Amino acid sequence: MSTEERAILVVGIGAGDPDHLTLAAVKAIRRADVFFVVGKGAAKSSLSDLRHRVIEEHAQAPYRVVEIDDPSRDRRAMDRADYTSAVQDWRSRRADLFERTMCEKMSAGETGAFLVWGDPTLYDSTLGVLADIEARGTVSTTVEVVPGVSSVSSLAARHRIPLNQVGRPVHITPARRLSEVGQNDDGDIVVMLDAHESFAQVDGDDVWIYWGAYLGTPDELLVAGPLREVSDRIRQTRTQARARHGWIMDTYLLRIMDPDERTTDEGRDSGRSPS
Amino acid sequence: MSTEERAILVVGIGAGDPDHLTLAAVKAIRRADVFFVVGKGAAKSSLSDLRHRVIEEHAQAPYRVVEIDDPSRDRRAMDRADYTSAVQDWRSRRADLFERTMCEKMSAGETGAFLVWGDPTLYDSTLGVLADIEARGTVSTTVEVVPGVSSVSSLAARHRIPLNQVGRPVHITPARRLSEVGQNDDGDIVVMLDAHESFAQVDGDDVWIYWGAYLGTPDELLVAGPLREVSDRIRQTRTQARARHGWIMDTYLLRIMDPDERTTDEGRDSGRSPS
Ligand SMILES: C[S@@+](CC[C@H](N)C(=O)[O-])C[C@H]1O[C@@H](n2cnc3c(N)ncnc32)[C@H](O)[C@@H]1O
Ligand SMILES: C[S@@+](CC[C@H](N)C(=O)[O-])C[C@H]1O[C@@H](n2cnc3c(N)ncnc32)[C@H](O)[C@@H]1O
Repeated sequence: MSTEERAILVVGIGAGDPDHLTLAAVKAIRRADVFFVVGKGAAKSSLSDLRHRVIEEHAQAPYRVVEIDDPSRDRRAMDRADYTSAVQDWRSRRADLFERTMCEKMSAGETGAFLVWGDPTLYDSTLGVLADIEARGTVSTTVEVVPGVSSVSSLAARHRIPLNQVGRPVHITPARRLSEVGQNDDGDIVVMLDAHESFAQVDGDDVWIYWGAYLGTPDELLVAGPLREVSDRIRQTRTQARARHGWIMDTYLLRIMDPDERTTDEGRDSGRSPS
Repeated sequence: MSTEERAILVVGIGAGDPDHLTLAAVKAIRRADVFFVVGKGAAKSSLSDLRHRVIEEHAQAPYRVVEIDDPSRDRRAMDRADYTSAVQDWRSRRADLFERTMCEKMSAGETGAFLVWGDPTLYDSTLGVLADIEARGTVSTTVEVVPGVSSVSSLAARHRIPLNQVGRPVHITPARRLSEVGQNDDGDIVVMLDAHESFAQVDGDDVWIYWGAYLGTPDELLVAGPLREVSDRIRQTRTQARARHGWIMDTYLLRIMDPDERTTDEGRDSGRSPS
């Protein structure tokens, strides 16, 4: 690497459990001179808490921490084209901001790190923003990505279920696309970014849900069972938890059960008793 | 936990890079009295090598290692119903074998660990086999799952791309289901378990492929670009590598590019120059 370049590490830190950090992530964090912590708003401060905790525990002095306040994004309900363009506008303002911050707060030859929630390759904009900056060509960077344990893997691990049934696909989708995705095949569906309890719109006797919120944290909540039977319980749990914390982060897997699997323990409850 | 029970840890160890082990995995490995290493045949001995290496590096003496020779599985080409029943037959023989081994080689009150390639929740039969054993009710176990970094996350991280495009779904599928999956939407498709270079059957000017083999290992191979342009190169690379190693393990992401994304650097090559 030439000393003219800024080395950027994009490091997945897991989705809530500080022990989900990989050894590679720990090593990457030790190499960093500057940490860029992107703000997510006060309501989700426990997200940036995990990042600060990880930095305090693993970073090697001397290091600097630079907070970046996310440009605000238009989050009103909108159709797909508007949604995409709102995200793109936000991405471009974010690229301006990140580029400026990287130039001002780190010197060429230094190493900067973005600590990313879960796995940086799943529903996270950091890689896209850095690609945009690189495409502009005004600042020379090398980007290295350290994968992480996603909330999807955490969800399945806590329920002690595979994400897929034997030989079948898995679909991962933002809630706003749930009605289109995987409705015509036998694959499991993982839903993320759901602000509207979209599972309540799904119907079918043979649909099981495995739901989890605040996964990997002391506030973790798990519910599983036949969707029809547990849907209301999840909605109540969700509403109460959201009121208590001021925010919620949840994800769930929807599975069409085979008739002969329906009576096994695996489907009946949230899995065996919690450990 | 009652001392009558056998504690079973199912630990994801990442898909090739020993540094993809999480801190939680390291802690779990330290707790184990017995490691069950499931054989995968001589050709893939480097898979069990990683497991042995991880045990030697992180396990706390005294511990025992028990090799389990996988029952052989019918791998002839077959239709889906036959495929499912072949897998189920194999699973039940595997449950017999695992149950017997757990009873003979570990005492109630001890902790046993299965080290699983990648993430145990993705295309791995260990959790299914343990659920089958639990359903039989003859041996009392508590199962704890430690999620891992999957080969899917590794693939995207090495190519420095998100798995999904903004606001869109991602489909993960075994190659045998590729023709059915995600062909009618704009989501990205990750293909695993491909013995037949199924990407060569996919057509379209706007399809990009991000391919990786032996990810995370010193033999790692990466190719990316417009599918039409790089398809032959991947096939050659694959054939040569397979001849050299005697086996290959590869996975890839297929992405329908938006017209306005097609000319960016992100799509043009395997990403920026390797770090
Ligand atoms: C912007 S995406 C980021 C995903 C992240 N990169 C990952 O790998 O998990 C945020 C969504 O991930 C899911 N999520 C992230 N962390 C979670 C957690 N600890 N518990 C439950 N869901 C979580 C929720 O669906 C949330 O809406
Ligand atoms: C039985 S599945 C196990 C997947 C594993 N549980 C995971 O999380 O990656 C095996 C498939 O995973 C993919 N795979 C696993 N490790 C890989 C690696 N190091 N490089 C490329 N592909 C890999 C290949 O598609 C292979 O056929």
